[in-house]
Amino acid sequence: MDADAKKTALRMIPYGIYVLTSEGKDGKVAASTVNWVTQTAFQPPLVVVGVKADSGAHAIIKDSKVFALNILGKDQKGQAFTFFKPLEREGNTIGGEPFRKGSLGAPILEKAPAYVECQLIDTIEKGDHSIFVGEVVDAGVSKEPEGRADDATLWLKELGDKVFYGG
Amino acid sequence: MDADAKKTALRMIPYGIYVLTSEGKDGKVAASTVNWVTQTAFQPPLVVVGVKADSGAHAIIKDSKVFALNILGKDQKGQAFTFFKPLEREGNTIGGEPFRKGSLGAPILEKAPAYVECQLIDTIEKGDHSIFVGEVVDAGVSKEPEGRADDATLWLKELGDKVFYGG
Repeated sequence: MDADAKKTALRMIPYGIYVLTSEGKDGKVAASTVNWVTQTAFQPPLVVVGVKADSGAHAIIKDSKVFALNILGKDQKGQAFTFFKPLEREGNTIGGEPFRKGSLGAPILEKAPAYVECQLIDTIEKGDHSIFVGEVVDAGVSKEPEGRADDATLWLKELGDKVFYGG
Repeated sequence: MDADAKKTALRMIPYGIYVLTSEGKDGKVAASTVNWVTQTAFQPPLVVVGVKADSGAHAIIKDSKVFALNILGKDQKGQAFTFFKPLEREGNTIGGEPFRKGSLGAPILEKAPAYVECQLIDTIEKGDHSIFVGEVVDAGVSKEPEGRADDATLWLKELGDKVFYGG
């Protein structure tokens, strides 16, 4: 396989930007910027997330079996960069962002325009990142998109001309 | 769960457009437009595709254990619409599009700017669409993107203001 072709082809996949959150049974909270996300079924509504195997979010989600995908809005570049690095909760904030508990217990970032909260129903652990399959059991929209919904989302490409996570 | 919130939140996930192809042991070929695609690991390079459980592509990929994701370019809206419906191969074309056999045997569309060819390494069949996990074992780029790689890809939103597959 031509490594350059593989890299280019995989980087042609466009992505949005999300903050993946979970709270462990011990009250630890993970909040991590991710982009490897897709829906995979309508009924039941399923989503897949690729999660770094050695990350805090990975460990906490395996413990809690619950996660939220907080969908970042166009004006939330700062939040995307904030959650590139692991942070500890401070009360009901993390990285300066207030959160509340969702109906399953996952942290919902108050300032994200929308979120889905998921029950972890399956995992495939075969690479440097694991595949977490979530069934969407709750969702919220605090800022209704004007125009197309996907145009309201912060896109990976908007983080910078040279910013990629893929390839 | 608020059904409208779920729909809006899931439609905030942006997507590219791909033609998923596979050839069965009997020589049958499937080519199907899909958008539920994400990379999920670097090492090994894994991708996930959500595939309609009752589709021809689903049956053929389960048989062949191999698929290609042909990444459509900005000027390939016509191809995206062509492969919304199931078609039969005619020689080494399908839907008027010439293809060749990739190194694993999956049909590679000659006019797509890039592709990845994958070995099916896992499946999760739990909804109206199944999760197919592919390890990328070959890739090709016939038209090098100018600028960002993801800007060269045809996006779901470019198929029409009202076109969504998700929610």
